[in-house]
Amino acid sequence: MEHAPLKLKPREERRLRGGHLWVFSNEVDTAATPLTDLEPGQPVVIQASNGKPLGAGYANPHSLICARLVSRDADKGLDRSLLVHRLKVALSARQAMFDRPFYRLVHGEGDFLPGLVVDRYDDVCVVQMGTAGMERAREAILEALEKVIRPRVVILRNDTSVREQEGLERYTETAVGSAPETLTVEEGGMTFRVPGVGGQKTGWFFDHRENRDRFAAWSHGRRVLDVYSYVGGFGLRAAAAGAEEVVAIERSEEALDHLQDNTEVAGLEDRVAPLHGEALEVLKALREDGERFDAVVLDPPAFIKRKRDIKSGLEGYRHLNQLALQLLSKDGLLLSASCSHHLGMDQLQDAVRGRARHLDRDAAVLARGHQGPDHPIHPAIPETEYLKAVFARILPTQ
Amino acid sequence: MEHAPLKLKPREERRLRGGHLWVFSNEVDTAATPLTDLEPGQPVVIQASNGKPLGAGYANPHSLICARLVSRDADKGLDRSLLVHRLKVALSARQAMFDRPFYRLVHGEGDFLPGLVVDRYDDVCVVQMGTAGMERAREAILEALEKVIRPRVVILRNDTSVREQEGLERYTETAVGSAPETLTVEEGGMTFRVPGVGGQKTGWFFDHRENRDRFAAWSHGRRVLDVYSYVGGFGLRAAAAGAEEVVAIERSEEALDHLQDNTEVAGLEDRVAPLHGEALEVLKALREDGERFDAVVLDPPAFIKRKRDIKSGLEGYRHLNQLALQLLSKDGLLLSASCSHHLGMDQLQDAVRGRARHLDRDAAVLARGHQGPDHPIHPAIPETEYLKAVFARILPTQ
Repeated sequence: MEHAPLKLKPREERRLRGGHLWVFSNEVDTAATPLTDLEPGQPVVIQASNGKPLGAGYANPHSLICARLVSRDADKGLDRSLLVHRLKVALSARQAMFDRPFYRLVHGEGDFLPGLVVDRYDDVCVVQMGTAGMERAREAILEALEKVIRPRVVILRNDTSVREQEGLERYTETAVGSAPETLTVEEGGMTFRVPGVGGQKTGWFFDHRENRDRFAAWSHGRRVLDVYSYVGGFGLRAAAAGAEEVVAIERSEEALDHLQDNTEVAGLEDRVAPLHGEALEVLKALREDGERFDAVVLDPPAFIKRKRDIKSGLEGYRHLNQLALQLLSKDGLLLSASCSHHLGMDQLQDAVRGRARHLDRDAAVLARGHQGPDHPIHPAIPETEYLKAVFARILPTQ
Repeated sequence: MEHAPLKLKPREERRLRGGHLWVFSNEVDTAATPLTDLEPGQPVVIQASNGKPLGAGYANPHSLICARLVSRDADKGLDRSLLVHRLKVALSARQAMFDRPFYRLVHGEGDFLPGLVVDRYDDVCVVQMGTAGMERAREAILEALEKVIRPRVVILRNDTSVREQEGLERYTETAVGSAPETLTVEEGGMTFRVPGVGGQKTGWFFDHRENRDRFAAWSHGRRVLDVYSYVGGFGLRAAAAGAEEVVAIERSEEALDHLQDNTEVAGLEDRVAPLHGEALEVLKALREDGERFDAVVLDPPAFIKRKRDIKSGLEGYRHLNQLALQLLSKDGLLLSASCSHHLGMDQLQDAVRGRARHLDRDAAVLARGHQGPDHPIHPAIPETEYLKAVFARILPTQ
């Protein structure tokens, strides 16, 4: 298979040799290999400026990331054979780490499959193709999944916003089998039902698995507030682990319906109270009512989606954390999470520190949490690390 | 009790108000309150430049950190009453997190007791007083421990190098009861015997508890190399969790004796092989013999003790990690740890990435580990965060 060349400017190969998988459009020698000659998703051989091949990848002339490397062997492009191999490598790690088949099976660049995400709910796979290259490999991906996992159902959730940057349409589709209305996931000995296709959000947030484990273990005997609860992951895990009472705030009625189902399945109706509404408004109302909680988990959506949002987003995190701190009892536990790649762990921790001091309290950070091991970080690509969680004990000023 | 004032220069109170506990000597208004008037360890009231008290603390005119805040209430100095309260606060967190009484009970600034460390081995406490202020409060500390813990034995391990910066002599002493030659610690369902007073190193490294949990869980069926094994924490936990074979490298014969005792206690003699020698030399010899391991843990002593050692220390970490990578099998697990505060998690991860690429391998970071929750981080004092662990899957180049 003869792939079109994509030649880099002098010295622009260094980052790739260091492990990175992305080529930015300003790094290409467009005189030698015009990007305009390439189709979105077209397979390419990426070359150093001296013509030496760096590996096989795929291009997208419409994207700032104009090419992604899929293999350092220029003869191994993104085909069924490579996908089968990569899926097997990804699967073996998950099988070694998890007892049950519920996990993120492929985490894009972290699994050396740039642009592809696969979540596994036993025999149901939910696939996200985030780039033109992965979209173009759609049939090979389905064939590889069939060979490695043999899923009963494959749902393509190709409706993520990143697709717009690639000039791709957004759609969802059931590519294999018949999509169930709800997906089932097992975690921590519990069963959760989560929205399948059609919901505002879809599926389970596998990334917080270890943070839920820890929060649940530390919630015993506490009155817990679960902010942005979605279908109840943190709150129900805490209730099952012995939290005295859990109040769960969620603005999506659909998610709340699932939360109530999940509460009933777990037999926790007597200790879990759902609260419908916008997080900030409900937090203010609880504060006015003089409510107090022994543990609060904040798992908001990303407040910082682009670098230019850092200042306003950080202000948003500060405001949210302050509201949570005002509801915390004298010796309380705050789990403050952020899924914004642009917010570092130290910044998040400092927001907690600053807001605590502002309220004349002191924080001691007991743990720092991350995305779980089914979301591997590619060490050359900082963007693959995005989830942070600060577990802070909040005390009266010392 | 009337304490001597220690007045800060204008605006130098801001960091303290933000939560920090340290005063540096260049921040003091020495015209108003000469440091030379103070004795090492003397209680002081720290004041803002306008004379407003910031809290009670203790001074040391011989140290760069010339005072530490122990309470934001200027009337509550470092006495028995404050120590009893702080110990109770520290204890309640540990009891909520751990089933068994083996943990760091006091982690200095992270527990709002600057300069004091207490490790608990059931009814034996090992205490480190790192500052002149804590040394001066010695009797109050012993009384407070007696009240809160009632230890059978209290060992003062006042032989740490930080004491030299405080102008303190180094000594060890059994202050209560009769010190046993070995201490016993329980972790992960196992029992370990560790050196009591007298050894080159003393005691157990509680800080790596969660990293040992994870490494053990991921070592099942693997051939494991434990570098800088000390008394076998990582290696024996791995063996007990089903590692096929464990080779443990340690240069201290005393530690190796304990490792062998611990191996026998656990009944793991058939799967654990101690190797006596310097880590780097043994690693090279293993490489020459063509040995391969499926998992390697690197838990070296701090290569970077002062900021000026960063460059050479980083080179040391790189070299060590490269040797480990050369011994890793095709799909291997590397746990690379550092207890150097001056080496950030990202730098450690980048060292692994760089050395892997140098050897034509690719790394995927499955997890980032930290000091355990009995070593709380004070969010205003970066130095209280020091332990990093990168769990990386090392693959052939992708």
